[in-house]
Amino acid sequence: MKKIPELIDIKEAHKRIKPFIHQTPVLNSSSIDKITGASVYFKCENFQKVGAFKFRGATNAVLLLDDKLRELGVATHSSGNHAAALALAAKNTGIKAYIVMPETAPLIKKKAVKSYGAEITYCAPNLAARESTLDELVKNTGATFIHPYNNKDIISGQGTAAIELLNEIADLDIVMAPVGGGGLLSGTSIAVKGLNPRVQVVAAEPKNADDAYRSFKLGYLVPSENPNTIADGLLTSLCDLTFKIISEKVDEIVTVSEEAIVEAMRIIWERMKIIIEPSSAVPLAAVLEHKKLFSGKKLGIILSGGNVDLDKLPF
Amino acid sequence: MKKIPELIDIKEAHKRIKPFIHQTPVLNSSSIDKITGASVYFKCENFQKVGAFKFRGATNAVLLLDDKLRELGVATHSSGNHAAALALAAKNTGIKAYIVMPETAPLIKKKAVKSYGAEITYCAPNLAARESTLDELVKNTGATFIHPYNNKDIISGQGTAAIELLNEIADLDIVMAPVGGGGLLSGTSIAVKGLNPRVQVVAAEPKNADDAYRSFKLGYLVPSENPNTIADGLLTSLCDLTFKIISEKVDEIVTVSEEAIVEAMRIIWERMKIIIEPSSAVPLAAVLEHKKLFSGKKLGIILSGGNVDLDKLPF
Repeated sequence: MKKIPELIDIKEAHKRIKPFIHQTPVLNSSSIDKITGASVYFKCENFQKVGAFKFRGATNAVLLLDDKLRELGVATHSSGNHAAALALAAKNTGIKAYIVMPETAPLIKKKAVKSYGAEITYCAPNLAARESTLDELVKNTGATFIHPYNNKDIISGQGTAAIELLNEIADLDIVMAPVGGGGLLSGTSIAVKGLNPRVQVVAAEPKNADDAYRSFKLGYLVPSENPNTIADGLLTSLCDLTFKIISEKVDEIVTVSEEAIVEAMRIIWERMKIIIEPSSAVPLAAVLEHKKLFSGKKLGIILSGGNVDLDKLPF
Repeated sequence: MKKIPELIDIKEAHKRIKPFIHQTPVLNSSSIDKITGASVYFKCENFQKVGAFKFRGATNAVLLLDDKLRELGVATHSSGNHAAALALAAKNTGIKAYIVMPETAPLIKKKAVKSYGAEITYCAPNLAARESTLDELVKNTGATFIHPYNNKDIISGQGTAAIELLNEIADLDIVMAPVGGGGLLSGTSIAVKGLNPRVQVVAAEPKNADDAYRSFKLGYLVPSENPNTIADGLLTSLCDLTFKIISEKVDEIVTVSEEAIVEAMRIIWERMKIIIEPSSAVPLAAVLEHKKLFSGKKLGIILSGGNVDLDKLPF
């Protein structure tokens, strides 16, 4: 088992990454408060560099490499926000990034990763091909594999968003984050419980990709079964490290329907005039579908990212 | 001719409306700076209450009514942001608002106006019907007609966004605003030239609705001829008051193609993760289509609003 990060690791990560990240704003909306019957504060990681919280963890992981490892660069396989985040984090610190992407990845994601100067290796669009391509790449280059969430330094970096949220908004009753692989939720729960154990941590997950919910309830790690959700950032499954943290630190996981995700996304677009990706809408969807749980509460929601394909909107 | 407002009127309007408005953020984007070759600061009136700068002018106009007039309420005809802005401004100050709307106005706009407690009178969807319906309403109720831009108090209110912009960002070379009826541009130009005459004021207008451009170049007011642009907030024509102000205070008006408006709108959505309506994209469209004019300059752009129908996006 990897060592579990503590609040001090997240605080140190925050100091470390501060010169590189945006301190993103916390917004609220009187009309969303009216709709939900709660006071909701949104931590806008959709405004983070590369458009997602992932940049926090990637920057922390890259900065923690020693000089020898920096020379050899970093590597990962991803078709999503972690790839772009690692590519930019590497560029900012002057080291090489090797990214394995499926040939079928959206052109816009390929372009983003390329624009940050990363070297892309394409592979067949399945996990086995991704992993074997990455293994070979790592063997040939000596680059350090930076897993998107099964990594202590990544988790510490992701937790820094919650530190900023709690510093800015006092007396929150509940902090909410979406859960996919669990990196954001792990970092968030360690930060929140470390800073103030009375604040509840509630995760939200699509019903159609509910491995975290089932693992949390059963008490052992169950894999994802054919996850299929519009919240494409949440298709991944928990790993041993994130499952252990979430089991210890998270108070509740709530699942939501696809309809509620689209409705919540639309409400945030229309009322707040900000662009979020479907994964970011999952916590508000939970508030809409489980109103009684949240009614009258002061909620902090981490909006995880804003990378959507404008040609493929659900409305 | 109505009296032309001065900087002092705008400063006083600002004090007056401050408790009611959002002091909206000024955002910038390194990737848009890269695309344009300029430094661009966006004043986000899309985050203003009712989703548009119009709330500033409407609030100022309502607050300036004397007690007798307040008792009788306010009235206007509009299917757009001014209707919602006047309705909310009236609600906030506890007075009645009568809004004449074409029967064909989008349901979402009717709902918004109604949700602010205004009384809606529907009419046929043409200017003659709007004006005659409004005249009768004003005769019957004694309500004060608040024109969306041919009104000194409205213009003073709209100018307050530029005061906030110049207070926050030092050393701007150019301030840009879109121009339709000219209320925002008039207030902006009075504020900017009053605060710092060395700052240029450049307006941007769709080629397909270029009455302000032609009037500005010819030196006399020419009416709009079949305006037809995606920037639906800019279909209106200058009036005598706004034409006089713009002739005196504005340095240049630049026209843009429909393609450039959609491209600029998409760039702002994708790079800044914020939602703006097409009219708001017109100044950035001008920067993209006339790069040499703006290259290397420090620009302040007023994003006028964020009310778009998500079911009818141009991409």
